[in-house]
Amino acid sequence: ARTGIPEAILAEGKDPLAVAEIFERYARSGDQLIATRVTAPVLDALRPQLDGLQHYKVARIVSTRPPEIDNDRATVCVISAGALDRPVAEEVAVTSRLLGNPTREIFDVGVAGLNRLVVELGTIEKAGILVVVAGMDGALPSVIGGLASQPVIAVPTSVGYGTSFKGVAALLTMLNACSPGTGVMNIDNGFGAAVLATKINQFGQRVSAGLRE
Amino acid sequence: ARTGIPEAILAEGKDPLAVAEIFERYARSGDQLIATRVTAPVLDALRPQLDGLQHYKVARIVSTRPPEIDNDRATVCVISAGALDRPVAEEVAVTSRLLGNPTREIFDVGVAGLNRLVVELGTIEKAGILVVVAGMDGALPSVIGGLASQPVIAVPTSVGYGTSFKGVAALLTMLNACSPGTGVMNIDNGFGAAVLATKINQFGQRVSAGLRE
Amino acid sequence: ARTGIPEAILAEGKDPLAVAEIFERYARSGDQLIATRVTAPVLDALRPQLDGLQHYKVARIVSTRPPEIDNDRATVCVISAGALDRPVAEEVAVTSRLLGNPTREIFDVGVAGLNRLVVELGTIEKAGILVVVAGMDGALPSVIGGLASQPVIAVPTSVGYGTSFKGVAALLTMLNACSPGTGVMNIDNGFGAAVLATKINQFGQRVSAGLRE
Amino acid sequence: ARTGIPEAILAEGKDPLAVAEIFERYARSGDQLIATRVTAPVLDALRPQLDGLQHYKVARIVSTRPPEIDNDRATVCVISAGALDRPVAEEVAVTSRLLGNPTREIFDVGVAGLNRLVVELGTIEKAGILVVVAGMDGALPSVIGGLASQPVIAVPTSVGYGTSFKGVAALLTMLNACSPGTGVMNIDNGFGAAVLATKINQFGQRVSAGLRE
Amino acid sequence: ARTGIPEAILAEGKDPLAVAEIFERYARSGDQLIATRVTAPVLDALRPQLDGLQHYKVARIVSTRPPEIDNDRATVCVISAGALDRPVAEEVAVTSRLLGNPTREIFDVGVAGLNRLVVELGTIEKAGILVVVAGMDGALPSVIGGLASQPVIAVPTSVGYGTSFKGVAALLTMLNACSPGTGVMNIDNGFGAAVLATKINQFGQRVSAGLRE
Amino acid sequence: ARTGIPEAILAEGKDPLAVAEIFERYARSGDQLIATRVTAPVLDALRPQLDGLQHYKVARIVSTRPPEIDNDRATVCVISAGALDRPVAEEVAVTSRLLGNPTREIFDVGVAGLNRLVVELGTIEKAGILVVVAGMDGALPSVIGGLASQPVIAVPTSVGYGTSFKGVAALLTMLNACSPGTGVMNIDNGFGAAVLATKINQFGQRVSAGLRE
Amino acid sequence: ARTGIPEAILAEGKDPLAVAEIFERYARSGDQLIATRVTAPVLDALRPQLDGLQHYKVARIVSTRPPEIDNDRATVCVISAGALDRPVAEEVAVTSRLLGNPTREIFDVGVAGLNRLVVELGTIEKAGILVVVAGMDGALPSVIGGLASQPVIAVPTSVGYGTSFKGVAALLTMLNACSPGTGVMNIDNGFGAAVLATKINQFGQRVSAGLRE
Amino acid sequence: ARTGIPEAILAEGKDPLAVAEIFERYARSGDQLIATRVTAPVLDALRPQLDGLQHYKVARIVSTRPPEIDNDRATVCVISAGALDRPVAEEVAVTSRLLGNPTREIFDVGVAGLNRLVVELGTIEKAGILVVVAGMDGALPSVIGGLASQPVIAVPTSVGYGTSFKGVAALLTMLNACSPGTGVMNIDNGFGAAVLATKINQFGQRVSAGLRE
Ligand SMILES: Nc1ncnc2c1ncn2[C@@H]1O[C@H](COP(=O)(O)O)[C@@H](O)[C@H]1O
Ligand SMILES: Nc1ncnc2c1ncn2[C@@H]1O[C@H](COP(=O)(O)O)[C@@H](O)[C@H]1O
Ligand SMILES: Nc1ncnc2c1ncn2[C@@H]1O[C@H](COP(=O)(O)O)[C@@H](O)[C@H]1O
Ligand SMILES: Nc1ncnc2c1ncn2[C@@H]1O[C@H](COP(=O)(O)O)[C@@H](O)[C@H]1O
Ligand SMILES: [Mg+2]
Ligand SMILES: [Mg+2]
Ligand SMILES: [Mg+2]
Ligand SMILES: [Mg+2]
Ligand SMILES: [Mg+2]
Ligand SMILES: [Mg+2]
Ligand SMILES: [Mg+2]
Ligand SMILES: [Mg+2]
Repeated sequence: ARTGIPEAILAEGKDPLAVAEIFERYARSGDQLIATRVTAPVLDALRPQLDGLQHYKVARIVSTRPPEIDNDRATVCVISAGALDRPVAEEVAVTSRLLGNPTREIFDVGVAGLNRLVVELGTIEKAGILVVVAGMDGALPSVIGGLASQPVIAVPTSVGYGTSFKGVAALLTMLNACSPGTGVMNIDNGFGAAVLATKINQFGQRVSAGLRE
Repeated sequence: ARTGIPEAILAEGKDPLAVAEIFERYARSGDQLIATRVTAPVLDALRPQLDGLQHYKVARIVSTRPPEIDNDRATVCVISAGALDRPVAEEVAVTSRLLGNPTREIFDVGVAGLNRLVVELGTIEKAGILVVVAGMDGALPSVIGGLASQPVIAVPTSVGYGTSFKGVAALLTMLNACSPGTGVMNIDNGFGAAVLATKINQFGQRVSAGLRE
Repeated sequence: ARTGIPEAILAEGKDPLAVAEIFERYARSGDQLIATRVTAPVLDALRPQLDGLQHYKVARIVSTRPPEIDNDRATVCVISAGALDRPVAEEVAVTSRLLGNPTREIFDVGVAGLNRLVVELGTIEKAGILVVVAGMDGALPSVIGGLASQPVIAVPTSVGYGTSFKGVAALLTMLNACSPGTGVMNIDNGFGAAVLATKINQFGQRVSAGLRE
Repeated sequence: ARTGIPEAILAEGKDPLAVAEIFERYARSGDQLIATRVTAPVLDALRPQLDGLQHYKVARIVSTRPPEIDNDRATVCVISAGALDRPVAEEVAVTSRLLGNPTREIFDVGVAGLNRLVVELGTIEKAGILVVVAGMDGALPSVIGGLASQPVIAVPTSVGYGTSFKGVAALLTMLNACSPGTGVMNIDNGFGAAVLATKINQFGQRVSAGLRE
Repeated sequence: ARTGIPEAILAEGKDPLAVAEIFERYARSGDQLIATRVTAPVLDALRPQLDGLQHYKVARIVSTRPPEIDNDRATVCVISAGALDRPVAEEVAVTSRLLGNPTREIFDVGVAGLNRLVVELGTIEKAGILVVVAGMDGALPSVIGGLASQPVIAVPTSVGYGTSFKGVAALLTMLNACSPGTGVMNIDNGFGAAVLATKINQFGQRVSAGLRE
Repeated sequence: ARTGIPEAILAEGKDPLAVAEIFERYARSGDQLIATRVTAPVLDALRPQLDGLQHYKVARIVSTRPPEIDNDRATVCVISAGALDRPVAEEVAVTSRLLGNPTREIFDVGVAGLNRLVVELGTIEKAGILVVVAGMDGALPSVIGGLASQPVIAVPTSVGYGTSFKGVAALLTMLNACSPGTGVMNIDNGFGAAVLATKINQFGQRVSAGLRE
Repeated sequence: ARTGIPEAILAEGKDPLAVAEIFERYARSGDQLIATRVTAPVLDALRPQLDGLQHYKVARIVSTRPPEIDNDRATVCVISAGALDRPVAEEVAVTSRLLGNPTREIFDVGVAGLNRLVVELGTIEKAGILVVVAGMDGALPSVIGGLASQPVIAVPTSVGYGTSFKGVAALLTMLNACSPGTGVMNIDNGFGAAVLATKINQFGQRVSAGLRE
Repeated sequence: ARTGIPEAILAEGKDPLAVAEIFERYARSGDQLIATRVTAPVLDALRPQLDGLQHYKVARIVSTRPPEIDNDRATVCVISAGALDRPVAEEVAVTSRLLGNPTREIFDVGVAGLNRLVVELGTIEKAGILVVVAGMDGALPSVIGGLASQPVIAVPTSVGYGTSFKGVAALLTMLNACSPGTGVMNIDNGFGAAVLATKINQFGQRVSAGLRE
């Protein structure tokens, strides 16, 4: 927590019993612990203590404590393109809330049907920080970046087939986005996007508090 | 010309004198000959006979005869994203005209400023076939494909730097376009796009003539 | 359906129950709904209502309504190279029919035995639009494109091993096809090929109806 | 300037005369215009009017107007790893200043000699936003991200040889940075990094002004 | 054993019964045999004789004989970055011991928390040869190489997701390490790293014995 | 010449003076020396002695001695697809002759116009060994391999642009050729193809001489 | 069988029942049919008729008829590097015999222990055609090609891990083999290697029969 | 020099005047400074002071002081495969000497002619540390590693064409070398190889001095 972010572990691939043990320790101490990419075997190992934990199924996240939203922060708006991008989009949203950010979701507004996006432009304008999640052609951040003035964090997902190359196509689109000023994350890294959004939000609070650097 | 398309050569890399000789032959016979990707040395070799030829500088095309537009065909609309995409976009437009298609250009309407595109939507709607040219993120065909009902031909360009990988990023975006039904060309292949547009236009004429297959 | 194509979903990776629910809704309203890449778990979830639906096993497609062929359109001819390309080739053919196109299949005429292709040249000549499906070396569209004058849509398949790189080799062959004017689709994207063929066919109808643009 | 960023053009590859013309227009109107990646031929075309323009040689930037620093904003700290990363690092710093940010440079503090970095930790701590520029192994953002709590923007450079693959190695390192919450830019995209830093700074000002969203 | 290294087999992919047979043969003769990457089926085939063998579970290694440490050699220090790198790090450490080297482990000291590494610097300084194991960004050898003067052997692991590309990102980081003089191994090749460390240690012994070449 | 092939050097990249010196030595001894990929600076260094050497301009080959054809061998038939493939095709043909093989050329019979190939089928049938040279889609060996029963050696060339990836697309097509039994060479390696053809021809002579192994 | 090679099918991925049916047909007619890459489900479908067929387990091949060796042909010598390369090496050897070639196997003579190879040099020298099978570094054909004068066919295998990239490393080694005149096959394509060896052998017979072309 | 290695700079790409200035400073102080990859413009800038410096032309190295060989160290033996690998091989040898190691060169002993290598085996056996330099197929370290028991450092070079991919093929071969215990460097990184060899040699001296860790 040295950098103001609670302890977080990537559960996938870890020994389920070891993960369960860490959760017991944190639950006892009352500290926040966040596990992302919680797989079925890890969930099984957590079963006995799951009642006392927070479990977000689609986001594949387990935490010791529920979110405590800091209402002095700006809203993080999570925008996603397609139905299959939802697990990553929820990883962003749940993590964002667990890290204290007021968070809003606008899902399924991909580039193939711009009308759905247009309807949401008012909501998007009111947000403080935008996180855009998209797979396949990964074109959504290019469009959002051309319309909005907020900081944009782009998360490519591994959704697609063939030449989507498990997210590489979307990643390249985002790195080459014609609308400049988009920060790009690793493929499927919803957690990292939420951390960066939190750091930007904390920066805003420091500035606001006159702790301008 | 077995397939209804006049003879065309890719000049780049060819022996300039050999290219000049072919042009002399075609000029004599009065047949149409199109050379694309005409480089400086080829142009130098053509210099003595250039007065009798058609030269399209930006498109890097030389032909023996001027376009003869077949006004019974539908309009091919060439839409391009950025200023640097212009040589390829002009290769599409000039070739399209040399192959007889009524052709229209809408340039510089990239995704970073959707407003410029919105202004042109009326014109786009009236076209018969759309050819969309874009480099960098290559996102323009995804957006057009979501808005229009015509056949869309997408041409990635080698414009960009770093992870644009000389057009590969744009190509992948187009192959993964969320709006289905886009036919993709090789990187910078404006010529091929115009040929496909012509074949679609000729198909329309055959259908119209009751030569429905 | 804004662009004249009925609603279609890519079932693979989606929550089977969610897919089943959408099908119930569309079946009730009587609207056409097409699901491609229907996997075993999705099929299981659809089982209770499958009697009222159309199921195309090899093509892995389920739809609410049977095809309604528009006999005023030109024939879409689906040509495939090898036995293993059949699922993608059938995805093209079934989608093409569900989108209303008279459709014909010429399967197993790969480049390794050109004689089998030669026999079919008469049939191919009579078609309006050609969709060519091939894996491994992906050489078939190059050959067809050199013989035919119709618009050619090329679909690389992930068939092959080693350096076929799950369809990348076939894709590159098609993008570099020496016979110009081929529009290329994403690997295994039979659905998109049928959509583009339909758009070309609808274009022909608009031209024929004097709605020339 | 719709998104609060002055007009900017990527000069490289553009027609030098066209670039010169735009500069004349902007100089006349007194508006800010920024050209990045100004190559020798472009500079030659600008020569007649260069006295009235701002020219940043190492950064390869030309602008119509000098920076106007907004001292109410937080400091953007540009940290770079090696001597060869300097052109990109200066592109970040100059753009950052031209966009109004108080900006500081800490150059040549690469991972191979951590002691040089340690000396600067106090300065880094006082900054509001960190932009880290590195080529070759691209390891610097991982280290900075583990030490600092501010938002980190990482810019891979094309510096290196062999398996640096013109910046791809550094890019991958940054996308996989073990310290979460780093936003990554395209290779050599110093301009984009400065734009994102500016957007974060503007966000801080909006929050500070009570325009919290 | 021609090169002073006992017989070793890579068990993964081999016929389990054939592996079991070789072990029986070596156990009978009393010679050392090391099997790495022992998978579940191989372990099953070894079950009947496992009591007489050495089995290292996390390292996935089985050997006929226990380590015989040569205390005249320098210490090989195995340093790893993250929790998930442990199987490869243990493959290094166990193999190193089985090949006779005094061996020490410093695990979980990744770049994201340099403080954990700093604590261990004294121990690291006392070692003779350093083997550094890291996945994801693979940045740890760059940092160690900048701090230490011993020979450094770097082992990239396949730990990570998305653009870690199963270890390629870490491999590239290591090949481009800014601190020169790091020898890099194939991804996940802990065995090879231990062999090279052993050869360096044996070289030290030969020099020490006056067998200087 | 240990393997029955005269000394050959790849001139490109070598010190021109060093190449000239070797030629002087071989010319004096009267032995055959073949230099491939002779660049302009190498040619300049050879200029003083060029009169006594054989120079093949398009093939970029210089040799000390003219070909001595062994008429007891079978004919090597070199078939190429496009005009730009000629330098590599000539490298095959010239080397083949210098190595003693009766050699025939059939150029410009690419897949885009199968009729040109059909005309040559009689000649092809009479050859003993086929070397097929093609760039871009590299489809020609697939077609030839389906028609002929001789051993086929395929040489991809770096001809093309965009996704031809300097010959990689053609190489992959050839490695995946649907007609089995094609041996593939490195991109642009006309020399190696001629060596393999020679080894096959020498094998035929050994068999014929009753030296059957 | 147009090209003198019996019918052969790649069973992997094919419908098992369809494969079984073809085998019944060929068994009835008494014609030779070869299936390679026979997977467990295909084998199950063949079970009822397996007694009447030839089954080669390690080679994963089933055929209707046993080999009929043509003793007038030269010997095909199959040389492989490591234990894990055996399935591909056996695919070469079994196919080679089924196609009528006297065939010899020299297995496990990889570059890591050149002494094992040296022992076999006499046998290798007596063979007519060499097929070299290797995974991992794929270095064996380079060594063999430097020692032998026969035609060499190189088959990379997918054996290895990490940067072996499922055979790509071995493939590249073989394409770049310093000893010129090696024909390379697709990864794991033992069948194709045997076909090419057969074509070379048939060529030798035609030459021997005075049917020199 | 914190790690016992004198200051070294990579000159390529650096400002020639800046390089010249550093050399003046080091020359004045009498300290050792090594510049590698010295390009023509850098050499021009150094011209006025070149008389007082050491210049190694083929190795492209300039240093302030000549080598001071430490004869208590073991010999570093630099082995290279082809003529074109010489610049990198000399970069290893010159750097090795400048870092104080007794150094020996065995050049042009590539795998295509193993006999040349066999002659040198005695010399190789007497060396303490082996550095093997090879391009194209990069097979030489595999062979050396199978014959020798010393630590092997492998340096891939960018020598080759087509699928050598500027050294990637050689790099992959080395990373997958069947003879375990080879440490691999970045492509063309002769300097790094010499540094690692020096660290191993210094390790040997520390062990020998009883400073065993
Ligand atoms: N989904 C995720 N993607 C990337 N990093 C993560 C994710 N979840 C947790 N982390 C980070 O992974 C690190 C935990 O690594 P470990 O100690 O190996 O579990 C912490 O720095 C987390 O911040
Ligand atoms: N810019 C271009 N891109 C792709 N193909 C082209 C281009 N220009 C001409 N072609 C085609 O290239 C072929 C000419 O090849 P060649 O005979 O080698 O000059 C013809 O089939 C043309 O249709
Ligand atoms: N984990 C490993 N990674 C790389 N090589 C290994 C590994 N384990 C054993 N080996 C080597 O693999 C070779 C054994 O190959 P094989 O004879 O095919 O089992 C020996 O040279 C071992 O030294
Ligand atoms: N164009 C070529 N492509 C590939 N190998 C070649 C070529 N020309 C000559 N060679 C081979 O390259 C080797 C000569 O290498 P070097 O001694 O470095 O000149 C010999 O084995 C030749 O057989
Ligand atoms: Mg999108
Ligand atoms: Mg665009
Ligand atoms: Mg085919
Ligand atoms: Mg760094
Ligand atoms: Mg690390
Ligand atoms: Mg071809
Ligand atoms: Mg080998
Ligand atoms: Mg070599």
